[in-house]
Amino acid sequence: MAIARAIREALGSSSMIRKMFEEGNQLKKQFGADKVFDFSIGNPDLDPPPAFHRVFLRLAEEDAKGSHGYMPNAGFPGVREALAKKASREQGVQLDASHIIMAAGAAGGLNVVLKSILNPGDELIVPQPYFMEYRAYAANHGGRLIGVDTLPDFNLDIAAMGAALSERTAAVLINSPHNPTGRVYPAGAITALADLLRDHGKKTGRFPCLVADEPYREIVYAGAAVPPILSAYEESITVTSYSKSLSLPGERIGYIAVNPAIRDRDEVLSALIYATRVLGYVNAPALMQRIVAELTEERVDVATYARRRDAFKEILDKAGIPYADPEGAFYLFCQVPGDDRAFVEHLKQYRILGVPGSSFGKAGWVRFAYCVDEGVIRNSGDAFKKAMETWKDGSTAPQVSGAGYGFVP
Amino acid sequence: MAIARAIREALGSSSMIRKMFEEGNQLKKQFGADKVFDFSIGNPDLDPPPAFHRVFLRLAEEDAKGSHGYMPNAGFPGVREALAKKASREQGVQLDASHIIMAAGAAGGLNVVLKSILNPGDELIVPQPYFMEYRAYAANHGGRLIGVDTLPDFNLDIAAMGAALSERTAAVLINSPHNPTGRVYPAGAITALADLLRDHGKKTGRFPCLVADEPYREIVYAGAAVPPILSAYEESITVTSYSKSLSLPGERIGYIAVNPAIRDRDEVLSALIYATRVLGYVNAPALMQRIVAELTEERVDVATYARRRDAFKEILDKAGIPYADPEGAFYLFCQVPGDDRAFVEHLKQYRILGVPGSSFGKAGWVRFAYCVDEGVIRNSGDAFKKAMETWKDGSTAPQVSGAGYGFVP
Repeated sequence: MAIARAIREALGSSSMIRKMFEEGNQLKKQFGADKVFDFSIGNPDLDPPPAFHRVFLRLAEEDAKGSHGYMPNAGFPGVREALAKKASREQGVQLDASHIIMAAGAAGGLNVVLKSILNPGDELIVPQPYFMEYRAYAANHGGRLIGVDTLPDFNLDIAAMGAALSERTAAVLINSPHNPTGRVYPAGAITALADLLRDHGKKTGRFPCLVADEPYREIVYAGAAVPPILSAYEESITVTSYSKSLSLPGERIGYIAVNPAIRDRDEVLSALIYATRVLGYVNAPALMQRIVAELTEERVDVATYARRRDAFKEILDKAGIPYADPEGAFYLFCQVPGDDRAFVEHLKQYRILGVPGSSFGKAGWVRFAYCVDEGVIRNSGDAFKKAMETWKDGSTAPQVSGAGYGFVP
Repeated sequence: MAIARAIREALGSSSMIRKMFEEGNQLKKQFGADKVFDFSIGNPDLDPPPAFHRVFLRLAEEDAKGSHGYMPNAGFPGVREALAKKASREQGVQLDASHIIMAAGAAGGLNVVLKSILNPGDELIVPQPYFMEYRAYAANHGGRLIGVDTLPDFNLDIAAMGAALSERTAAVLINSPHNPTGRVYPAGAITALADLLRDHGKKTGRFPCLVADEPYREIVYAGAAVPPILSAYEESITVTSYSKSLSLPGERIGYIAVNPAIRDRDEVLSALIYATRVLGYVNAPALMQRIVAELTEERVDVATYARRRDAFKEILDKAGIPYADPEGAFYLFCQVPGDDRAFVEHLKQYRILGVPGSSFGKAGWVRFAYCVDEGVIRNSGDAFKKAMETWKDGSTAPQVSGAGYGFVP
């Protein structure tokens, strides 16, 4: 059976990462899982909060008649209502149940949004570096991702985004707190972006949709707050999931919130519901819908992530590896001497696993996920130091830079 | 926000069905839900079998660490192994875990398969009538659905399918037991189809993939058995779900089984896993994966559906409405006098809801779903009789036909 040509090409380019994961598994078999410093994947190791367990158990005990059946494609009305209240508080606009579409995680929600708004050849503008899957999501629906470099501190470069806008621009996709950099875009950046998009719309007649991918909204540190999107710009949609805030990534549950002020709102809502149906989602998983509706005030223990971040920063400081200081999410994006893919290979000799920045469109950087046990982080100190020492002695010339990046050195 | 043009067109054509559902809800509000004979939707009302509840409760009590986290995109290895054993028994070939990809229901699985194999402009051949969503699924991935009429008894018309094959044919999609006709394709039809596809492949160098959508495999009557697909033709893939056999449609759980003998098997498996990932499914819902793996011997009480079918047939007989006698699934596909959409409108006056055959590509027919309480079916007898009597007296000329259809008259 010949597979689709586009998939064959994609498989070729993603095989590097697969290979890395396989080698990681090989390392764990060889040395034991606890002897491998696996910072490669953003798979939260924290358990869901205790309230999750209580609701889960109660619903299992009740196992109410019809509770596993179909509901409207957009989700259970009561669930949508509960999440509309939550989204209203976070986004500074008044949403009701009709503005919420339940989704199979943020990845599902983003595909639903992009299918609903992209015409063939339309462009999706994304600040770079970006989560590597976005490019495939745009391509799924005939669109094309246009990466736009961010400022040295990874904040939005509004001028560069303005230069990238065209009549083909269907949407701008931002992710804050940001994977891989940990950046939280400040309110000023969001306002400036909104002004830019509004001006562009007035000039061209086509107002780009601002899509905010917000699965890390609740994973923020030291009082950082993620500014609202919906109150900043009318033509906006947020997508989120409970993969990080409740540690439920395998259960595929999240939702889309549509700005009540968006043009052609009813048509947009109908399109999202239609896309949910025909992309084969049909609806977000029923049981998890009912669970998350009862947990709008709950989240995992962010203080644990904060402690891990601090422990990891200490290790990087001692090893002399500069990084972007994360305001949210659970990644440390580090500037590495020389080629990032070669450096990631080199790290494997010390049983350290990370993801090359090239995979996010940012060569010369490496991402480490710290959603792993603090002990693993603490034990990796010597490995990082040795890896840096031997790399400097290695055959690949390190190209150390970093001035002006606003990092902890 | 302007939605995508393709979606706008699709919304226009699907608004009729939406309107019907809305009117159905209106009827229920007006007369009470028990006074409306709603046979429109295939949403099983039977509870999952008791074993489901036991496993669900046990897993909720355990709520094991990490059990809601990411697993490999294809699913938990142990779950895939359990389902490989089940699929091996059903399909007459030896599968192992690597041949199973967990999916978010059959709708999710079909989208994953079609994304993996369709190139732009490729054709998907489907016996007609067919489940109305298939056309959108093919279009999602740049393909085009080609409907091929079936025989008068709704069995496969092998000659007609042969005439529809071309070098653009990527796949043939069959559904047995069949929605909406209840037909189970006999082994002879599957063998003839396999021979046809094999010959076509030898002649053209392109072997079409046979994709079997089998969510109703376990809902069969009077000893009818669904013949295996994988043992009949090498280039084949089955897709199934637990929406019907365990009454879990809202939970979105099912799987894809790939023929171990398929050409380029490892590449096909990689493509399916990649498509699962980038379509935003990421993986099938974790908890339901673990539940269904323990329920490979369980299914809902099919005898209940058989009793309902018999009750419904009696009512149709008395009303003088001919139908295809279902061998499986839970639909009665009925030949109606005159225009099926007009007839469905007419039925509403008697508070009977069905789906026009036109929505399945078969004008002059109406589908009634009998996955509803037997009391609702029994109470609908007078309504059906009156609807038929008044329709005959109505202004639309009935075009009664039906000879040669092999039905109970």
